[in-house]
This record gives sequence, structure tokens and C-alpha cells, in this order.
Amino acid sequence: MSFIKTRDNRDIYYEVHGDCENPPLMILNGIMMSTASWAGFIGDFTKHFRLILMDFRDQGKSSRESVQYPIEIHVPDILSLLDELSIDKINLVGLSYGGQVAQLFALDSPGRLKTLILANTPARISPFLAELGEAWKEAAKLEDGERFFSLAIPFIYSDLFYNNNLQWLKARQKAFKNLLDAAWFQGFIRLASSNPDFNVLDRIGKITCPTLLLCADRDIITPLEEMEPIHERIKGSELLVIHNAGHGAFLEKTAEFITAVTGFILKNS
Amino acid sequence: MSFIKTRDNRDIYYEVHGDCENPPLMILNGIMMSTASWAGFIGDFTKHFRLILMDFRDQGKSSRESVQYPIEIHVPDILSLLDELSIDKINLVGLSYGGQVAQLFALDSPGRLKTLILANTPARISPFLAELGEAWKEAAKLEDGERFFSLAIPFIYSDLFYNNNLQWLKARQKAFKNLLDAAWFQGFIRLASSNPDFNVLDRIGKITCPTLLLCADRDIITPLEEMEPIHERIKGSELLVIHNAGHGAFLEKTAEFITAVTGFILKNS
Amino acid sequence: MSFIKTRDNRDIYYEVHGDCENPPLMILNGIMMSTASWAGFIGDFTKHFRLILMDFRDQGKSSRESVQYPIEIHVPDILSLLDELSIDKINLVGLSYGGQVAQLFALDSPGRLKTLILANTPARISPFLAELGEAWKEAAKLEDGERFFSLAIPFIYSDLFYNNNLQWLKARQKAFKNLLDAAWFQGFIRLASSNPDFNVLDRIGKITCPTLLLCADRDIITPLEEMEPIHERIKGSELLVIHNAGHGAFLEKTAEFITAVTGFILKNS
Amino acid sequence: MSFIKTRDNRDIYYEVHGDCENPPLMILNGIMMSTASWAGFIGDFTKHFRLILMDFRDQGKSSRESVQYPIEIHVPDILSLLDELSIDKINLVGLSYGGQVAQLFALDSPGRLKTLILANTPARISPFLAELGEAWKEAAKLEDGERFFSLAIPFIYSDLFYNNNLQWLKARQKAFKNLLDAAWFQGFIRLASSNPDFNVLDRIGKITCPTLLLCADRDIITPLEEMEPIHERIKGSELLVIHNAGHGAFLEKTAEFITAVTGFILKNS
Repeated sequence: MSFIKTRDNRDIYYEVHGDCENPPLMILNGIMMSTASWAGFIGDFTKHFRLILMDFRDQGKSSRESVQYPIEIHVPDILSLLDELSIDKINLVGLSYGGQVAQLFALDSPGRLKTLILANTPARISPFLAELGEAWKEAAKLEDGERFFSLAIPFIYSDLFYNNNLQWLKARQKAFKNLLDAAWFQGFIRLASSNPDFNVLDRIGKITCPTLLLCADRDIITPLEEMEPIHERIKGSELLVIHNAGHGAFLEKTAEFITAVTGFILKNS
Repeated sequence: MSFIKTRDNRDIYYEVHGDCENPPLMILNGIMMSTASWAGFIGDFTKHFRLILMDFRDQGKSSRESVQYPIEIHVPDILSLLDELSIDKINLVGLSYGGQVAQLFALDSPGRLKTLILANTPARISPFLAELGEAWKEAAKLEDGERFFSLAIPFIYSDLFYNNNLQWLKARQKAFKNLLDAAWFQGFIRLASSNPDFNVLDRIGKITCPTLLLCADRDIITPLEEMEPIHERIKGSELLVIHNAGHGAFLEKTAEFITAVTGFILKNS
Repeated sequence: MSFIKTRDNRDIYYEVHGDCENPPLMILNGIMMSTASWAGFIGDFTKHFRLILMDFRDQGKSSRESVQYPIEIHVPDILSLLDELSIDKINLVGLSYGGQVAQLFALDSPGRLKTLILANTPARISPFLAELGEAWKEAAKLEDGERFFSLAIPFIYSDLFYNNNLQWLKARQKAFKNLLDAAWFQGFIRLASSNPDFNVLDRIGKITCPTLLLCADRDIITPLEEMEPIHERIKGSELLVIHNAGHGAFLEKTAEFITAVTGFILKNS
Repeated sequence: MSFIKTRDNRDIYYEVHGDCENPPLMILNGIMMSTASWAGFIGDFTKHFRLILMDFRDQGKSSRESVQYPIEIHVPDILSLLDELSIDKINLVGLSYGGQVAQLFALDSPGRLKTLILANTPARISPFLAELGEAWKEAAKLEDGERFFSLAIPFIYSDLFYNNNLQWLKARQKAFKNLLDAAWFQGFIRLASSNPDFNVLDRIGKITCPTLLLCADRDIITPLEEMEPIHERIKGSELLVIHNAGHGAFLEKTAEFITAVTGFILKNS
């Protein structure tokens, strides 16, 4: 169990997997995720990369906060972790909320990025997304993992994933009952309240490192229309679409996700 | 205020608008709707039709039930209303849940149909849709209109509708607070529990009256993929797509909805 | 056989079908079409409309030109025909090239329009469309109906239409052999050369009459992306999508085409 | 200039680029292509692969045939080349026609495949595709590169590519004038006549090596609907969609193409 201590005395949990000779790949979680979400990816990613996972504040094994903070709070934590690991330039993958953090990091510390992969992530919180955030917070306030799953998860996975993986999902719903405690829900609410005004559309064009956008054509949280403006603004960026997947494309179509991430980083190594 | 009395002594509320010389058009509501939802359509529809609106049991001004029933319960109510109004053959529009009832009616009483229009409605409850039903019931159990709106409505309207009509939606959310009382929520839960096994895919091919399917390309509740099997099975059926609209297409794109309904019925009159 | 004589002494062929008490509906042909293309639509359209068909110069039974002209040449011909028929305001449907003429007519004579329906038509000739025009002219220069069909028609109808109607298409290809003579091809080339710079995007917003846009989701000649700018610019315009159809949607999905046209005009009558 | 001599005494041209320690990657051309089409890819692909390019009979620098042959003729040529290069198992990329050959090779010699990537390629010649083949043969019979380009290429590249790259395309059209001689056109016609009955849908499920399907969402020659049946039949296959690209996706979106190919092969190495 590895942690870094932040300047404000918080513990940020992280994991490092794979050979330190390999190019470093750091993944930033989506809002409901944690380092544990990547267990099934370690084998594939460590074939070619030194994989670095971390939990944001209020996520997984990292410290819980007690007052509200803006999403920008995570940026120095990433920098601290890179410094701790003596990584000069990182290949950074950000999913959804993690992708928003990744955009902020790219704008803040361009010199520390080798490549950037934004998966199912927007450059702004649209009115719809803001309302969805409110819905999720409403669901979280119930502080009941099973009901939270019932209310929030149908937005995440595509109808096709539900239709084909119902038993797995029902088992997962049961697991949420035990996994998610009051502290988790309170942390979730703070994370979900950290980015209501997130909008980097005006600045995103300043990103110059090789950038890949990973979209999914049944993602209703960050539909293609919300990712195309990023593609237009980041010169030379690439965009690949994972077919028949929703916002949880990394899990719905794990193989395609790994293919795209692996190819983009190695091509640019 | 007009009601018919059913054989089991329930009151079914209905409204008749427009000239009785005009072809009759009956609309069956979606699960969260009532006759009041159609106020803005009366002007356009009565130009050419005698418009008949009704509230299902547990909807609007109709009687509340106290025990669970299957969705089939509504079919004889429609027949009774047609008899009451001395209408031999009806042009029937069914939205979502109302479209499921319309399919059952078409299979039960083919002789009473002139044309059938199924808008944003499936021929089966997919696993995803069943889970969505559970989510909505969970939200309804809170018996709080504002929170219900927050949790359930983002599935109904498209992201584009949210992005362009946020103030209207927020006002509507406030209105839900007062409009929806405990009786409404209990009725909603019974309606939402009446069709878990709904599946007429095997029988739908028996429908022979002119049929129009109205879809919306951002409808995540009844996506095109769930309506195409109906199109394939009902010989000669037509299918039109309302662009950039969600499950609430009738309200998101009212004009297009009226155009399609008007054209299809008059063409077949 | 009815003709009007234009001021420059050309004969414009037209047909009038149906009851003169009905609202008048005029259809403007696509570039490869003629009044004969609408034979299968007369029955349905005359149920509610007085149907007026016409051949543009260089089309069908109208006079052939000998020198090149701009697409605007057709506008006064339409006016003359309306005057001849004592029609003050017309419901105008324009398909593809005919839709471009309809846009010019709407901008030129707004007072003569009741409603406007633009089917599978762009507001500008994109570079791609210009190259397609060149390809078609190249094919026309062969002056061989069968080869012209082979080279040009796969752009018109969707792959699905080919896959489901191959025999009809092959028979039609044979018919082209006899139907299309040198005069036809020369006329076609002039028509196809009349609009290389067509672009009314800047002006189209001035159209104020009720307008419906009919699109098809497999139309590669005028894809949705080329029709959405019209939708955005004409305030209050409606847009319906015919599913699984190509540029020849009026023929691939005749029933849906008639439904939409009928509904839109009658709703606005 | 390297050639292998086939058993029937033909010369098959091939090129080998990059380090022989790297995993071998062989690319099979589309019907209008040749080894020269890949000049711009050599730099990126040799970073990680030993790149093997070849011209089919009747393509590029390989021997011209004089009588018609079936598409299966190319399979032993690939085997001979692999033997010549002492390659036991190959990573095979097939584009369009080359993808059809790749499928035949995979069914014929499963033991010689490491991975298979099928880009913009169908498992059967649909009626539409057969007609398109006829159109291309008709265009080829003119034996004029400029007119051939005008008539055939608008099917290949997306409208967006035309709209954004018109000058490059016009220059290319001019180049075709000189590049394509009578021998080229006759070879093209034989290639285009070699696969009218190609249909491996019944057998494709036997492919067991890791397989990636690369599609493009504006590809009208091999639309997603023609590639999804392959995805369904080859167990564990992956599918990625290149957005806003046509049949020529490898050239329209070179970067995304290289990312996907690189990632899939290295992940499986």
C-alpha cells in the first residue's frame, strides 16, 4: 500500500505495476471508480507499460475531505505523484471525471505530458450533464449502494450491455450494498460538486501533445457531440469510436479500449 | 368532466375535442402523463380530427387502484370508451406505455382499429428497460416530485432538449413538487409494475391495419433498435424518425409529431 | 398534354390532377426525373390535393435548350405556371435539384408560397457535390442509358434498396437504354451545369413560410449534415428523417414520403 | 526490387521494410492500390514492425494475367511469400479486396496467422456491391485515368474528405491520367471480376486468431452493417470505428488507422 503525502497533509493512494523500463502510463479514474476498477487491465497494460493508478481525494483508499473543493485540487496531487516516481513525462489516460482532470493537468503542466488520452470525457459541463450530476447527488444522498446502483448506473452502461450482462450487473448491484458506505457517498457528493462550472473549451486548443479521444456511440453522458469540439480544437488529435458501448466503454469493450490506448502510446513512444 | 364507469366500477376520465364529423383520433398516454399533457395539441389536432383523450386507471383523473394489475387491464376500458362514444373504428396513437397498450388493443380488437400509430414504444420490455422501470419505482418511492423529476426525467428528454430548455425544465421540476402526491406515486408504481413481462414480438405480425412507427434518434428508452423489430413484423408499416429528440419526442419536437400523425391518418382516411 | 409558353417562347409541360377545390400541391423534379416519375403518387396525393407536376426546361416533355443557363431560369417558369392556373399561393415540394429551385423561388416570390417542403436537397453545392456533378456529366457524355444507369444510380439509391430491389433496378437499367436519347443526355448535362455555384446559405434564413425538411439517413448526396444548416436558418422549420433510405427516398420509402408531405400541408391548411 | 516466382511462373512484387527482429506485419492492398500506396506509412509501421508489402497479380509491379481468375488465386502467392521470408506466423492486415483475400487466407492457412485485421472489408459481395463493381468496370473500360477517377473515386472517399481536400484530390486525378495505362485498366477489370460470388459468412466463424475489424462510419462500400456480421461470427473479435471517414479511411484518417493496427498487434505480441 503506497501513499504520497500532499502539502496539505492528505494521503493519495497509488499503485505501480510493471517494469520501470517501460513507458509510464497513468490512468485517472472516473468519478465512481477507484484503483480497484483496473484490476482486469493490469495484465495487458504491463506488457508494454509501467502502469500507475491512483485514487483521487475522496476516492478509494485516498484521504476523505470534509469541505467542498474545486476539481482543480487534483492537479498538484498528480504532479506530486509524478515527482515521487521521478517521472518526467507521462502518458496520461483520463476517463470521464478523470478526463476533465487530465485536461486541467495538460493545461497546467504541458511539459509533464508525453501523450494524452481522453476517454468518454467532455470539455464542459453541459446543462444536461449538470442535471445528471444533480440526479446522482440525489441518489447518493440515500446512502444505499443498492438503490444508488439502481438509480445511477443505467446512465453509465449502454442498453446493450444491460441486455447482455444482466446477471453480472445484478451481482454488482448487490456488491455496491456492502462496498459503498456513508463516507463513500459523502466523498462522491463532493467530487460530483467539484466541477459544476467546468469548461475548458476556450483553452483546450493550447494542448499540443499527441492526443487521442476515445468515444462510444451509445454514451449518453458524453456523447460524440460533446467530444467533437475537443477534436476540432486540439490540432492533430485523433478520435476513435468504440461501437455499441455506453459511457462505461472501458468496461463494456475492454479489448477495444486496450487496443486503442496501447497503439496510441506505443506509436508515439 | 366526463367519465365512463367500467364493469368493475372504476371511473375512467376522458375528453372529447373537436367536430364529431371528423375522423376520430384517440391518444393513449405514456406512463407519467395524463390528458392534461395534450393541452398544447388540441388546437392542431381538432383541425382535422375528433380528438379523444383518456386517463388510464391510476392516471390523471381516473380511479386509483389498490392492488397490482397487469397492463392488459386497460384494453377493455378503451373498448368501453369507444362503445360509449359510438365509435366503430378508431385511429389510435399510443406513446411509450400507451403504445404497449395500443399493441395489446390492436391484437385484441383488430376490428376496432382504423390506423395505429406507435410512438417511442417497444414490443418487449428488454432487460435494460426492466432495470429502468426499477429505477423509476425506486425514485417514486421517495414520494417527492422534485426529486423524482431529478432522478427520472434525464432518461426521458434528450441532452439537447435539456441544453436548450433548461429553465422550462427547472420550472416543471418545481411544478412536480405540488402536482405529484402520494396517490400519484402509488399509482405510478402500479402502472410501472404492470408490464414487466410485456413481450408481443411473436404476435405483433398479426396486426394488419395501417401502422406508423414514430421513433426519435436520441431516445434511449426505446431506441430505434427496439422499434425496428416491430417495423419488420408489421407488414407495410411505415417508420419515421424525429431527429435530435429523446423519448419525449412528442414534446421536444411537437410540430414534427403532429405532422406525422396528421399525415398518416388523413392519408388513410 | 398541357403546356405553357414562356416569354422566351419555350414550352413548359405540366399536368394537373385532382379536384381544383383541394389545396394546390406542386412538385419540382429532381434532375434525372420528369412528371412521369410521379405516376405512382397521383392516387394518394389527389385524395387531398390538386396536384401540379411540371417538367423543367430540358426535362421530360418541356422544350430543350441549346445553350447553358443558370438554375435561376426555372423560377419565372414556375411563376408563369402558377399564373396560368390562377394559383395565388402554392404548397411547393422540391426534390434535390428541384429543391434548389424551390429555395430560389421561395426567396424570389415569398408571397406565392403557402408552405415549402425541401426533400433531399442542399442549400449549397459542396465540393463533394460538385465532383459528383462532374462524374454524372462524364457518365452522361457516353450517351448510353444502360451505362449511365450503371455509373450514376448507385449514388442515388441506398445499398439497402439495391439489396432488396435488384431485379426492379436491373429492369429499370434496361429501360434507360431506350428512354434516354442524345437529347436527354444533352439536356441533363445542361441542367447539371446550371448550379455549380449554388449557395443560398446566407439568404435562406429569410424564408418565413412553414417549411419542412425531409431527409434520409443513407442519403450520401445530401446527407443530414447538409440539410441541418437549412433547418437552423429557417426559423420554425420542421425536419423529419426517413430511415434506411438514400437520396431516392421518395421512391425507396414512398409511403413515408407521402405521409410527411400530406401531414405538413394539411396541418398548415 | 524483389520478386518471388510463383509455381505458374508469375512474378509477385514485394517490399520488406524495417528490422527483421520486429513482429512481421503484412498488408494486403485494396483493389485500386499497390505497394506504393503505403509510402506514407512505412515510417510509423517500421517503428514496431517488420513491414511486408506486396502487389497482387494484376497490381502494381506484379505480373499481369491474361485470362480471368478467381480471387482465391492470391492465397498461395501469400503463402509463397511467407515461405520465402521464412515467416511462420504473420500479422495480416487486409483492406477491402485485400481483406477478402485475408479472410480466404485465414480460412485456408490458420496456422500461418498471428493476428488478423480486416479494414473496410465485407464477408460477402452484396447486390449493391456487385453493382458497384459493374460501375467500376464500366468506368475502367474507358481506359482514361482522369475520367476513371471522376466516376469511381467519389464512392471511395467520404464527402467530408472531398470537402476538405479538394486540391489534393484534383492533383491526384491528374496523376491518374499518367499512372493508369491500358494494362492497368485490364488488370483492374480482372481483379474486379474475380470475386462476384465472394461469400464466406458461413465459414468466417472458423477463424480463431485474434481479429480486429476496422470500420468507418461514412463508408458506403462496406458500411458497418456489412462488417457487423463478421464481428458476430468471429468470437472475441474487436471492432473499432473511424469517425467521419469513408471507404478510404486508411488515407482519410491515417493516424487513427496506424493507432489501431499498432495497438492490436502489439497487444497480442
